[in-house]
Amino acid sequence: RVRAQIISGLESDLKDPQTIASNKLNAIAFAGHPYALPSNGTLDTVEALTRSDLIDAHRAVLTKDHLVLSVVGDVTAAELAPMLDTVFGGLPEKGAKLPQKIVFGASKGTTVVDFPSPQSQAIWAQPIDVDPDHPDFIPLFVMNHILGGGGFGSRLTDEVREKRGLTYGIYSYIAWLGATEYLGGSVASANATIGEAISVVKDEWKRMAEDGITELELEKAKKYLTGSYALRFDGNAKIARMMAGMQLDGFVPEYINVRNERINAITVEDVARVARTHMQPDDLRFLIVGRPESVLSTN
Amino acid sequence: RVRAQIISGLESDLKDPQTIASNKLNAIAFAGHPYALPSNGTLDTVEALTRSDLIDAHRAVLTKDHLVLSVVGDVTAAELAPMLDTVFGGLPEKGAKLPQKIVFGASKGTTVVDFPSPQSQAIWAQPIDVDPDHPDFIPLFVMNHILGGGGFGSRLTDEVREKRGLTYGIYSYIAWLGATEYLGGSVASANATIGEAISVVKDEWKRMAEDGITELELEKAKKYLTGSYALRFDGNAKIARMMAGMQLDGFVPEYINVRNERINAITVEDVARVARTHMQPDDLRFLIVGRPESVLSTN
Repeated sequence: RVRAQIISGLESDLKDPQTIASNKLNAIAFAGHPYALPSNGTLDTVEALTRSDLIDAHRAVLTKDHLVLSVVGDVTAAELAPMLDTVFGGLPEKGAKLPQKIVFGASKGTTVVDFPSPQSQAIWAQPIDVDPDHPDFIPLFVMNHILGGGGFGSRLTDEVREKRGLTYGIYSYIAWLGATEYLGGSVASANATIGEAISVVKDEWKRMAEDGITELELEKAKKYLTGSYALRFDGNAKIARMMAGMQLDGFVPEYINVRNERINAITVEDVARVARTHMQPDDLRFLIVGRPESVLSTN
Repeated sequence: RVRAQIISGLESDLKDPQTIASNKLNAIAFAGHPYALPSNGTLDTVEALTRSDLIDAHRAVLTKDHLVLSVVGDVTAAELAPMLDTVFGGLPEKGAKLPQKIVFGASKGTTVVDFPSPQSQAIWAQPIDVDPDHPDFIPLFVMNHILGGGGFGSRLTDEVREKRGLTYGIYSYIAWLGATEYLGGSVASANATIGEAISVVKDEWKRMAEDGITELELEKAKKYLTGSYALRFDGNAKIARMMAGMQLDGFVPEYINVRNERINAITVEDVARVARTHMQPDDLRFLIVGRPESVLSTN
């Protein structure tokens, strides 16, 4: 039943330009690395799965050295220890090795994947080397919110959607996947206008690198980012889930307490500095799925 | 802090054509009824809130007669009763009256709200009188999945996005809000093309009413709807949340056990019958926010 459901999802993915684009970009960027593979598998691999494949995977993955655990509640560490032993004591000590660190390997420039559609889906990525421990992480996070992380009001939405009407949705994000980090983004536009949309993205990348942000933008971003954070902590289960997610993403538990303080301490100069350092317009990789007009594939 | 966060959300809503459209349609459709008001309030009402407003609302709403409860776990009703008394025993017996039943009151046809944007957001609604107890509910639910509920592969996505490239996202849904029910939907398109998008929606409404669906469409919808349902029940908290939501929406608890069976029993004739009965192309109300070209406001 689960196999049928996944296959039905994969069949739908084959028609979704966004999924096609992201699978293709991963395949190019991380060739030879597990990140190159689609996370839901392919029709072939899912069809071929056997019960013993699942048992093997279970054994390789559910092990003590891969376990991340967060406990939230009225319990002491001493009370907790025997409970954890009961639940997890039977797991093997060591599992399969985690993926090696890898740098985003796709060539700079533009790759076009032909797909019969009146619209094109573009995604982009620019490698960075900033994990959550890096001192530039917080200013870069604030910068991305202003650039394209914040939906309505972000620069990319203003420029590409509001002013030019080239799309209904555009966003950027910071991907920190454990074994790699990059700045990414996504936009869909008609085949005739996707080229213009991409060129606005490049311009905004350059403008951010050269001019940074304004006081007003910073103030609004701080208000939003710090105000919304508190609302995520209304319940034990949510807090535990957030803390487990943070561990997987490489954050220390103290991050929860210092995050808002660190965001509030950011200045426009801090953001200008990290933008100058990390935003590299010439380092952008675009992958376009569709039949874009006047866009040249450079790869 | 919560007030500042809500206000920051409302400021962003003022720029979002989809929220503007949906607030405006509710205001027209449910004038004089609580459903006419935006669920997050307005800048004025949220600014004006006092502590005693919250205490009054708390008293009017958190009462035994409004309480819906689902418990999932290894517990008997006899064990549970005293626990529930401890937790909820102190609540007042009766709270404020719930909203009266209301029929979607907006005039048929098209209403345009001027908004300076290169794109237009259209939403639509067509009143129905089918709550979850109604024998037509399940066939209508399957019909909507095929019409525009299912994303990629749905008729509206195929016709408006895939074939004509008029939008990046279009969907339809069944709203059953307790005091009213309607078939709704949403699409955004450039000002020059929103008129064409709307006319395709009307055509698809008509085609469904006249011709129903095909065997292949029904088979795919059944596979998806029944397969994905089981995946929602992996955990006590999820099951309890679903059962509480079901009670609020007017489903009996047995629905969980019979839903997939009832979906699998549907025939193309069942869907054709409910489509003929409930799909009323002439009864559609469109609300457009933007500067649509060649679209006449009929209201």
